[in-house]
Amino acid sequence: MPDNQSYHMSPAEFRKLGHEMVDWIARYMTQVEEYPVLSQVKPGDVRAQLPDHAPEQGESFDSMLRDVQQIIMPGITHWQSPNFFAYFPANVSGPSILGEMLSASLGVQGMLWTTSPACSELETHVLDWLVEMLDLPAHFKSDSTGGGVIQHTASDATLCALLAARERTTNFQTNHTGVTQKFIAYTSTQVHSSMEKAMRIAGLGSDNLRLIEVDENFAMKPAALQTAVEADRAAGHTPCFVCATVGTTSSNAMDPLGEIGPIAEKENLWLHVDAAMSGTAALCPEFRFIHDGLEYADSYCFNPHKWMFTNFDCDCFYTRDRAALIRTLSVLPEYLRNQATESGAVIDYRDWHIPLGRRFRALKLWFVIRHYGVQGLRHHIREHVQLAQEFASWVEADPAFELAAPVPLNLVCFRHVAGDAMNQHIMETLNTSGKLFFTHTKLNDKFALRFAIGQLNTQRKHVVRAWELIKEVSTQSRGL
Amino acid sequence: MPDNQSYHMSPAEFRKLGHEMVDWIARYMTQVEEYPVLSQVKPGDVRAQLPDHAPEQGESFDSMLRDVQQIIMPGITHWQSPNFFAYFPANVSGPSILGEMLSASLGVQGMLWTTSPACSELETHVLDWLVEMLDLPAHFKSDSTGGGVIQHTASDATLCALLAARERTTNFQTNHTGVTQKFIAYTSTQVHSSMEKAMRIAGLGSDNLRLIEVDENFAMKPAALQTAVEADRAAGHTPCFVCATVGTTSSNAMDPLGEIGPIAEKENLWLHVDAAMSGTAALCPEFRFIHDGLEYADSYCFNPHKWMFTNFDCDCFYTRDRAALIRTLSVLPEYLRNQATESGAVIDYRDWHIPLGRRFRALKLWFVIRHYGVQGLRHHIREHVQLAQEFASWVEADPAFELAAPVPLNLVCFRHVAGDAMNQHIMETLNTSGKLFFTHTKLNDKFALRFAIGQLNTQRKHVVRAWELIKEVSTQSRGL
Repeated sequence: MPDNQSYHMSPAEFRKLGHEMVDWIARYMTQVEEYPVLSQVKPGDVRAQLPDHAPEQGESFDSMLRDVQQIIMPGITHWQSPNFFAYFPANVSGPSILGEMLSASLGVQGMLWTTSPACSELETHVLDWLVEMLDLPAHFKSDSTGGGVIQHTASDATLCALLAARERTTNFQTNHTGVTQKFIAYTSTQVHSSMEKAMRIAGLGSDNLRLIEVDENFAMKPAALQTAVEADRAAGHTPCFVCATVGTTSSNAMDPLGEIGPIAEKENLWLHVDAAMSGTAALCPEFRFIHDGLEYADSYCFNPHKWMFTNFDCDCFYTRDRAALIRTLSVLPEYLRNQATESGAVIDYRDWHIPLGRRFRALKLWFVIRHYGVQGLRHHIREHVQLAQEFASWVEADPAFELAAPVPLNLVCFRHVAGDAMNQHIMETLNTSGKLFFTHTKLNDKFALRFAIGQLNTQRKHVVRAWELIKEVSTQSRGL
Repeated sequence: MPDNQSYHMSPAEFRKLGHEMVDWIARYMTQVEEYPVLSQVKPGDVRAQLPDHAPEQGESFDSMLRDVQQIIMPGITHWQSPNFFAYFPANVSGPSILGEMLSASLGVQGMLWTTSPACSELETHVLDWLVEMLDLPAHFKSDSTGGGVIQHTASDATLCALLAARERTTNFQTNHTGVTQKFIAYTSTQVHSSMEKAMRIAGLGSDNLRLIEVDENFAMKPAALQTAVEADRAAGHTPCFVCATVGTTSSNAMDPLGEIGPIAEKENLWLHVDAAMSGTAALCPEFRFIHDGLEYADSYCFNPHKWMFTNFDCDCFYTRDRAALIRTLSVLPEYLRNQATESGAVIDYRDWHIPLGRRFRALKLWFVIRHYGVQGLRHHIREHVQLAQEFASWVEADPAFELAAPVPLNLVCFRHVAGDAMNQHIMETLNTSGKLFFTHTKLNDKFALRFAIGQLNTQRKHVVRAWELIKEVSTQSRGL
């Protein structure tokens, strides 16, 4: 074979096809509203159209793009549709996509400072910016005892916090010996599934996760936390961790950090605050009440990949005790040793999370912040909260509906008064129609509709139409 | 404020800037060889050029791209340079970047089948293709008891395998109770750092990781494994897991799966095979000897993001017992319940790994396989192996140098015979020059240079020049 025979795509080809891809994407952006929001395919539909075996010979990009249109697109649930009100949003934005493109093309692997200094330093820098932007405690900044890092998801952040708590509690002995005592963690009954998952992964066991009861607003009762900790100490267990949530997934309840914090401090529990969805609201001074008491937290996370217009994945995780985190997760084999690491003057982010390798994710975050400016981000967050408050006022004004939980920010939990069957019917009818997509939860054992307003493309007209559709289906279904 | 005031980037703006970004990337592809491979900045250099605070007002994309060029690029270590021979490669390719662009733009979150059926089904399908492409055991296919999933990295894969092993050994009780016994895991002294990290994370403790001695080729000695297991059973511990490596990071040693497998089977250990770097070689029938004995494995992973021209992150993880994996990791809260999941007819990949959320990573893998075809992939893998073999022959023919380990595939470990100081000097001189970048390890307590040939852009001329430079520096430094 000739020395330079190549199946690689040349830069010139990439330029041509890249332009085609960009045009395709721009078209998708203008057309996203026309697709059914929730995919209407049935299990197996997508696979049935794909060839059984990988191609022996290379294929043209045209054929791939055709298959994307014909096979993949019908199987997409459109998270970028303005009519997506399900779960929590996972927004993308123009500047963020540009950042992903750049990151994908540089293809640097930022495990160590030396493997691309800019990858680590830009991350440290932008995460310091965000401490100021959200008015977080100064001890989360890199010039203190703490610092921030981009994790994949809030699940990873919770796990890392729990591990650091476990280790700090045992003076870093459990890392060597394995778990030899009953470590107890606390969170509210409204907790995210990732907390139970973290207990299992860390070898602490889901039975040792105490679900603390909540008040009428679904927020953790601090007195109940105190009681539970005392009971566990009396039983000879080792309380070590409490996860408070600022904006629960189920109903957006806000745990009272200002009361939980002093208990955590007194009882020597690592306090992790999960603000995955709602943290972004703190860009706006008027919403910073959600972080009252955050100064007690040992760690904190929020997800720009949810509500801050930054592509998944991008969870910002902060700790006030980076030494504990690093000591928990650092393993240094010979083949990763290098002068910069040994100088102690740099951050090697591989020691701050589970994986070794990492993408250059700070680029997209940097692009988003610079494109919008703090002002632009605030504008859109306020818009979403205002729309949610307006939606909530419509629910309250309609005797056929009721709010199922307070609406502190942009998630409205509500229900039709006719009961579970009616609510399930409304949801399934509308989701199946493709006109909008929203999901549900259970609150006080009753079915509740969850309506999250945070999709970047959502405007008032989409929310107005959604409420009309909901009322329409409920009216047509009287008697359910 | 007007209803539709917006700071968002419009589709038309995105089209324009996207084209600019694509042109920038295509230019980078043609120029990557001109940059110093290893970044030459000093700690703090990048941060010193960034403003202390986030911008209040939005900024132009031009200004961002200018900063990328002036501030970021000097801080990049160029993993895509043809003169990158360090660590293991982290390749990107044209079709893979196009796949990342599409994934970033659709912005779907594939935690559940229903949140984008195509995201799950394409992943299952392409991972089944790969079982055939690499001639892996059929029980890793989704139509058996097993199946594959894309994980972030091999570290995540190892952790998930270890967790499933822990749980299967205790009939899934440890998930509830936490760790209450000494679980023992086995691997060779040449193991990747992720194995110790996984032991810590899983609450098993690094003291309970047995490092089994290796033979003269740095491959695990099966008899020593057998002895260690017996000693642990005699001591009342619970052996549960063995990690064999197909291509160690240090020297590309191949653990003998065909001998380790029967021991694992007899002793009821979960056998995980980590082929992160080398697995890709099995695309070529003549290199499939590396997988001899893989039929014994309970799980397996390899990283297309290393040597299969697919952007980081993309680790393909397979298990023959998906029920064990899912039972280990599944937690189902009300707000994620849906009809498709409850029908049992679909795969929800959130139950196959640590995080809940996930990107649509199968797209890039699909694009890569279709662009190259199996034939094109094989061509380039063979080319890399051939270049490494040629490089090794030069080392062997030069009396000033010696091979430090066998060269089964594309990693050459070698050293100058003058000793550690000379080797360190050669490496530091050349890495600092910016002309090429390679790293080191220690083998039998002696410094060894690691020269990994797997970068997509590397051609014979780059390898020839690298060897000339290495010889030149060593000649100039006689007496060290």
